[in-house]
Amino acid sequence: MLKVGIIGAAGYAGAELMRIVLRHPEFDLHVATSNSDAGTPVAHLYPAFQGATDLAFSRHDDPAVYECDLVFMATPHTVAMKSAPSFLEHGITVIDLSADYRLRNKDVFEAWYKVEHTSPELLERACFGQPETHPEEMARAAAEYAAGKAVLVACAGCYPTATSLAAAPGVPFSQGVIVVDAISGVTGAGRTANGRTHFCSANENFEAYGVGSHRHTPEIEQILGIEGRLVFTPHLAPASRGLLSTVTLQLTEEARGMDLGDFRRRYEEAYAASPFVTVLPEGQQPKTSSVVGTNRAHVGVALNPTTNCLIATCAIDNIVKGAAGQAVQCANLVLGLAPDTALTLVANPS
Amino acid sequence: MLKVGIIGAAGYAGAELMRIVLRHPEFDLHVATSNSDAGTPVAHLYPAFQGATDLAFSRHDDPAVYECDLVFMATPHTVAMKSAPSFLEHGITVIDLSADYRLRNKDVFEAWYKVEHTSPELLERACFGQPETHPEEMARAAAEYAAGKAVLVACAGCYPTATSLAAAPGVPFSQGVIVVDAISGVTGAGRTANGRTHFCSANENFEAYGVGSHRHTPEIEQILGIEGRLVFTPHLAPASRGLLSTVTLQLTEEARGMDLGDFRRRYEEAYAASPFVTVLPEGQQPKTSSVVGTNRAHVGVALNPTTNCLIATCAIDNIVKGAAGQAVQCANLVLGLAPDTALTLVANPS
Amino acid sequence: MLKVGIIGAAGYAGAELMRIVLRHPEFDLHVATSNSDAGTPVAHLYPAFQGATDLAFSRHDDPAVYECDLVFMATPHTVAMKSAPSFLEHGITVIDLSADYRLRNKDVFEAWYKVEHTSPELLERACFGQPETHPEEMARAAAEYAAGKAVLVACAGCYPTATSLAAAPGVPFSQGVIVVDAISGVTGAGRTANGRTHFCSANENFEAYGVGSHRHTPEIEQILGIEGRLVFTPHLAPASRGLLSTVTLQLTEEARGMDLGDFRRRYEEAYAASPFVTVLPEGQQPKTSSVVGTNRAHVGVALNPTTNCLIATCAIDNIVKGAAGQAVQCANLVLGLAPDTALTLVANPS
Amino acid sequence: MLKVGIIGAAGYAGAELMRIVLRHPEFDLHVATSNSDAGTPVAHLYPAFQGATDLAFSRHDDPAVYECDLVFMATPHTVAMKSAPSFLEHGITVIDLSADYRLRNKDVFEAWYKVEHTSPELLERACFGQPETHPEEMARAAAEYAAGKAVLVACAGCYPTATSLAAAPGVPFSQGVIVVDAISGVTGAGRTANGRTHFCSANENFEAYGVGSHRHTPEIEQILGIEGRLVFTPHLAPASRGLLSTVTLQLTEEARGMDLGDFRRRYEEAYAASPFVTVLPEGQQPKTSSVVGTNRAHVGVALNPTTNCLIATCAIDNIVKGAAGQAVQCANLVLGLAPDTALTLVANPS
Repeated sequence: MLKVGIIGAAGYAGAELMRIVLRHPEFDLHVATSNSDAGTPVAHLYPAFQGATDLAFSRHDDPAVYECDLVFMATPHTVAMKSAPSFLEHGITVIDLSADYRLRNKDVFEAWYKVEHTSPELLERACFGQPETHPEEMARAAAEYAAGKAVLVACAGCYPTATSLAAAPGVPFSQGVIVVDAISGVTGAGRTANGRTHFCSANENFEAYGVGSHRHTPEIEQILGIEGRLVFTPHLAPASRGLLSTVTLQLTEEARGMDLGDFRRRYEEAYAASPFVTVLPEGQQPKTSSVVGTNRAHVGVALNPTTNCLIATCAIDNIVKGAAGQAVQCANLVLGLAPDTALTLVANPS
Repeated sequence: MLKVGIIGAAGYAGAELMRIVLRHPEFDLHVATSNSDAGTPVAHLYPAFQGATDLAFSRHDDPAVYECDLVFMATPHTVAMKSAPSFLEHGITVIDLSADYRLRNKDVFEAWYKVEHTSPELLERACFGQPETHPEEMARAAAEYAAGKAVLVACAGCYPTATSLAAAPGVPFSQGVIVVDAISGVTGAGRTANGRTHFCSANENFEAYGVGSHRHTPEIEQILGIEGRLVFTPHLAPASRGLLSTVTLQLTEEARGMDLGDFRRRYEEAYAASPFVTVLPEGQQPKTSSVVGTNRAHVGVALNPTTNCLIATCAIDNIVKGAAGQAVQCANLVLGLAPDTALTLVANPS
Repeated sequence: MLKVGIIGAAGYAGAELMRIVLRHPEFDLHVATSNSDAGTPVAHLYPAFQGATDLAFSRHDDPAVYECDLVFMATPHTVAMKSAPSFLEHGITVIDLSADYRLRNKDVFEAWYKVEHTSPELLERACFGQPETHPEEMARAAAEYAAGKAVLVACAGCYPTATSLAAAPGVPFSQGVIVVDAISGVTGAGRTANGRTHFCSANENFEAYGVGSHRHTPEIEQILGIEGRLVFTPHLAPASRGLLSTVTLQLTEEARGMDLGDFRRRYEEAYAASPFVTVLPEGQQPKTSSVVGTNRAHVGVALNPTTNCLIATCAIDNIVKGAAGQAVQCANLVLGLAPDTALTLVANPS
Repeated sequence: MLKVGIIGAAGYAGAELMRIVLRHPEFDLHVATSNSDAGTPVAHLYPAFQGATDLAFSRHDDPAVYECDLVFMATPHTVAMKSAPSFLEHGITVIDLSADYRLRNKDVFEAWYKVEHTSPELLERACFGQPETHPEEMARAAAEYAAGKAVLVACAGCYPTATSLAAAPGVPFSQGVIVVDAISGVTGAGRTANGRTHFCSANENFEAYGVGSHRHTPEIEQILGIEGRLVFTPHLAPASRGLLSTVTLQLTEEARGMDLGDFRRRYEEAYAASPFVTVLPEGQQPKTSSVVGTNRAHVGVALNPTTNCLIATCAIDNIVKGAAGQAVQCANLVLGLAPDTALTLVANPS
């Protein structure tokens, strides 16, 4: 059993991490921190844990954090960049769910996040945590861990994960601008109560937001290698969880000869090794409800011959495959465990 | 007071028509038909009308229909094309909410709807009912009516309405493929109870559908004059009403010199005369909840300089501005009434 | 046209008041105040008003308030008790939506609201604003107004309104404890964003709250004259609006001879004069969605012979018939207008 | 590994059974039947199973059913009463989720279900499956199974489970009529698509139904031993899953001496042995969202001294603790496994 800590456990991703770690056969949830809720029993803040754990939140500077073998960081950006260096020095592997180490280029990070990066020397060391599109990064991390080194994983964000799973196999056949319209449930806006997350504001409503300026833009471009080609428009829809990304790729003239079957084969091959990604049968479109609460991703592919465009969609749970689940998937891979350890759930069927 | 009939009154658009007609100062709701619910009191099927009307549905062949001055047809496609000729012969003005007379080209209609058109001679006579983008069509209809002729109006569909309001002022500055991702509430799928409209299937879920093949594609292309350039992907979201269309336009090189203010001015000018369409202040995005239950349309405009793209969004109520409200707006214009007669409602604020 | 002011216009009841007042043929919305949002355009806070009004919120102490003929007070308790005396002195009629003047007994008020009443001398003068159960109070108010006096109306709360409409005609035949379980949409919890009103907390959830201690208890007891007999348990359900009250009355032995038809007649007679309350046909139960956005109340009645109990239910919109609509209904009655002026809406049918 | 069959696997309870059985370490899902969906892959009807199982539904008369060691019957009433006798003869243990064997008295069953019972001789043999309130029944079943006999378990219904968990420890201190108002999510209405389960009918709505006549009435009375004392009013709320039962008990005069702490102790003792039932801390009320997707039950207790009433609430997932989960819990107990095998999930926190 590894001693596991969750830094920033009171947010939605942190709570989902607790839920997964508590059922993980190799993990012992040693400490869960939250500066704002320190001292509060987890089950008081999240009554779902009533009867499941007596753990209370402690502060980020709880010494128990340094007794851990591995920490998940589910904190707002700038927290991990300050504490990860010390964790790594103490031999503690860090799985970071925040944006701090995702962008390889310090300048790009600072331009989009409007803040100085305080540990840019770790950007190169960080392994990018989107195992289906970057298996080589996970292999590097596992090798380092096996060699006795503490590892730093920078997990991909929610929109980048769904978007890259939808787009990656098609991008090599595309040209020009790539249009991504994505829809997220309200957990994506975080646990902060404000006018926008009020039930009566979000309910029976959908809207676009961050149009032309969402911070996941450079991350998606980096993952797919499409710098300068992306128009990304996120939308909010009245569901707690779920994220659907709809990607429209203008195909090249050479790709005109390929039919839907050809593209489907590329997608199926790309994800054949993943226990989590399923390319749906032809004609079926992913439903977010089919993956909510799980680490699964459902992908659909369609062609529009008139415009020579490929339309690919991907549904995930923004908090699981888009955050906590993918983080545990990365941890499993780093540790040499089966990738789906504690991650085999099927969604509530309906 | 004009005698008004609603053919196909038991569907969502028909019920909304009853709601508007009942409060219209110039309309007397003379007959409301539904073959499947004939004999049933309206207030039994829709308890919202309890205490508001004692009317019962009659059959489509109720002779009272021919006593009307004006009929709204809220029937599935192929019904209007069979009965409109006779209504017009009897001097009854027809406001058709279905697709039967929307497409000017008979072959395009037959290709997309897989059915023979039985009154193609009326396609040219039909006035297209999307007053903001086709004011000249409404002017033609009003002139004919003023001259004592029965008029045929083919009202635009829900997706075409929101999409064209978002796109129209920007299209002249665009080139290449136009990507439209739109989201509709579940009333858009109709009142038929099936696996897809079951609460537990639609709730907490969003999904794309009709990818690359939705029948509103040729109608949007016709309205905007963008034949062969459209990729239209509709989505379903867990709300009863509301429709949001997000349009991404690749701008021409010449348009690179225009800034957001330039585009905003074009949009504001385009809709200055409409009592229903509001271009929102800069930085604000339309929320469907702000227009639900009303005939209003909210439009937002943004630029993405990196890709030289314009992103425009429009929110409407799919059943009101996307169907029944727009039909009454067209009827008001035909009759020479104030366009917003019975259509001044503001949405439930929240 | 009367000059009308809304004090506390930024909350849900205040916003709904604006929506109704703007369409009221005899009312001119002269001023809308909110200390927290003073200076903000109404349409910025509530985009539903985009295109409908350019009004901005002003502060409660805006001198324009004293130019009004009539003010609606949609403020938290303790605000009206401080400012109503001055309004009345200036000859301004006050329609108070808060709890300040509802309870006739100062001690009861102070015991439940834990605050001293600063204008108890007005408690007797205040007319209770639940027109269907207290028509004599509205008659008194109208007579005073007709005699040139400024009037103070204390409108009933949302739970008391639905509960008394369900219970009133049955109470004379009941004995012992009266059990009321009611369900409210989330607007009932107010516009304050907090952990409880966060979309992800309220969504897909229902729960009881304020069990055994809700402040509407003494008000319901006073309206129905059932002091000491009420167990009132409110619940929260995942809808923006709507309130359903389910009342179980243990009938007396003498009432055993009455059948459902007898009770239905009592209910129908009780509400025959009201344009807003409909007793639904036998076997039909009120749906909150059938009254949302309107001032209507739907009532259902059933008997359980085994236990000799009457079960009556009433559905209203908590913000309209439970607050803003009822306030305008009271104002209409005070002013001698048709009671349903600006209040004839039918709900979105679905 | 036991070979397990699910008869009636295409409904919501059946699908949830598949979800649990697939992750059960001692169960092999051998066959899942549905006459209406025979031949269809499970993952086609419920895309949540995409990537999780290739199983297809077969017909109820699939011979594979008789190869099973244990079958769950998630069929409408009257199916189990016809096939259970044959299963038992073949030595197959039957866990019945339907109403067929719940009521001990054949006449009561026939009066409420309006159908003849075709295997009344099994009513006595059937063990009642609500382990927390009837542990002796589960002990009897386990003893029979250990002795090599096939066992018949009649699992409690959803409303009876939540209601009896809320009421049982309080009933001995009560007198007179017991009022139960319960709220269910829409899965409770089944997978049949009709006007009532249509998204746009159920959404943003709550309503009472089956007032004074719901079939769970005699079952609740039997469990609690309160024949003739129950008024049970179920309600529908706009959530997919979840069930909340609010029970109001008039306490006896002798019980007036007991305070809330006394009652809380009774409740805590009653459920101390259950891994699933948690009595929440004082002042906290159960939220259905905290138990959705799990076999957990949360119970809250409050007192109203004025009326000398106890108000107890219980939240469960109607499809899990109210159906499939409780069935697996019963199966675990029969088989001598840990009661929470495959049932340890925590709800999605939010």
